[in-house]
Parts: sequence; C-alpha cells; structure tokens
Amino acid sequence: MKVMVGGTFDPLHDGHKQLIMRSFELAGKEGQVTIGLTTDHFACRKCHPVKEYSARKASLENYIRECGFSAHYEIEPLNDRYGSAASENFDALVVSEETLPIAREINILRREKGMRKVDIHQITCVLAEDDRWISSTRIYRGEIDEHGRLLHRD
Amino acid sequence: MKVMVGGTFDPLHDGHKQLIMRSFELAGKEGQVTIGLTTDHFACRKCHPVKEYSARKASLENYIRECGFSAHYEIEPLNDRYGSAASENFDALVVSEETLPIAREINILRREKGMRKVDIHQITCVLAEDDRWISSTRIYRGEIDEHGRLLHRD
Repeated sequence: MKVMVGGTFDPLHDGHKQLIMRSFELAGKEGQVTIGLTTDHFACRKCHPVKEYSARKASLENYIRECGFSAHYEIEPLNDRYGSAASENFDALVVSEETLPIAREINILRREKGMRKVDIHQITCVLAEDDRWISSTRIYRGEIDEHGRLLHRD
Repeated sequence: MKVMVGGTFDPLHDGHKQLIMRSFELAGKEGQVTIGLTTDHFACRKCHPVKEYSARKASLENYIRECGFSAHYEIEPLNDRYGSAASENFDALVVSEETLPIAREINILRREKGMRKVDIHQITCVLAEDDRWISSTRIYRGEIDEHGRLLHRD
C-alpha cells in the first residue's frame, strides 16, 4: 500500500515514532511510505525553535534504519499544510488526533479536484506520564522528555 | 497487529469488501482480525430485510478464502454498537465514513474505563456509478447492484 505522513518531527518523540511505525506497518513490507517533512521556512511558524531540515531528516532516517522497516520510503519537503497529499495518488494518510483536521481538508481538496479520496488512519496519541499528550512544545518547555517522562516533579 | 471491524455485511458489496480487505492489510500476514457480525436480533433494526447470521457469516468466510488472506481471523456476534471493541485489547478499529462516529464512541468508552484508546482507520467509501456511496439500502431498493452499477437507468 502507498502511505503518506507528514510533520516537523522535532524533537523526534515517542508520539512521532508511533506515527512513523504505523505508517510502515500499514504500507506493508512491499509498500511505500512518503514522509512530508516541513521545510525550515514553514516550520518556523511553530511556537518553539526547530532544528534545521537536514538534521530533522537525518534523525528520521536513523530511526527508520534502527527499526529495520523494509518498505521503500522517501522524505520530501513540505511547504504547506497539504504537500503532495492533495495531488498524488496514494492509499492512506496517517495522522495523529491533533492533525486529523488536515486529513479531512486534504480529502475535501481531492474531491473538489475530482480525485479519489484516501483512507485516513488516525493513531492514538502517545500519552506522557501525566496522561496528557506528548508534544514537542511540552518537551521544549521542559515539562517532559521525548518519552513522556515528567521532569522537575518537585 | 490486532484489528477489529464490524457490520451486518448484507449483501456483501464492494464497500464491505474494501473494509475487510483493509482490515487484513492493516493486520499484516501474522496479525489478527476480529470481525463483529451483527446478530439477527440486532440487525433487525435495519430498514431492509437482512439474511440470517449463518448465511452472512458464510458469505464473509467465502470472500476471505477467495482473497487468500493469511492473518488469523474470527467472526463473533455483535449484539450492540460496540461489541468487544469496548473491552478487549487490540490496536486498530477499521470503519467506514458512515460508522466513524461509533469508533469515536468506543474510544470515549475505553478512556472512561481507563483502557488504552485504539487507532481509527477510516476507509474511503466506495462510490457507485453515480458518485454516491454504495450501501445495502440502495441495493435493497434496487437502485444499484453490489458493485455500484446503476440499475434501471431509463
């Protein structure tokens, strides 16, 4: 199956890893995964500093290598909310609970263009120790680490 | 991966087939698929006559055999909207655009019980020749066949 997923992935936390893992599982051993990675220009809208594209790309590649996924994959620059997901042929889009609205918008755009809508696979967000979502913003603020462990509990 | 899917599946049309196919693809070759099949008592709420449980079960089994899926599967009776999806441990629930609200309700119920929420994979409904969804009701009304071909076009 041909699967698409997107994000800024900085720092690469357990929620991102779940998103990538599910994308490869869904694609299957002979499938294909396209990872849209926000460009530095687009990612600068984030409310915290973001590492540069090449560093974020290397971090994703390392994780994929460590996991030993065999599906073919490519990482492509994402300059807006939709990237090539609004125009390419593929089967399923993998999103988090947070980015589900973007998937809906993509299907509306595809339908308007007379293209086939795609399946939407929404992963369950990984929870931190305090039962709230793991997010890059919370990690940047120093509340939790990449695995959702609470820091400075005192 | 352990996947759950549910329905009445009568008649087994191309939309149902897509739902079953994706469930097995998502489970992977060594995964497990649990298919909740509405009981005759529960299915009688439908606005059209429904074949009996054993006939609908045989039809699903035939389709799965024809496709040659290798994941382990079981078909279990579904007596209400949620079945064992609200209480068992599994990874992902496969639903159609029509049944997406049930998946949300299941995750709310799971959360209330302190259980892990599950991934939601929403397939894109298969369209009939007139670009409207294929549904059992439309087939029963004689508007379309199981493949979404329009009948009585005159």
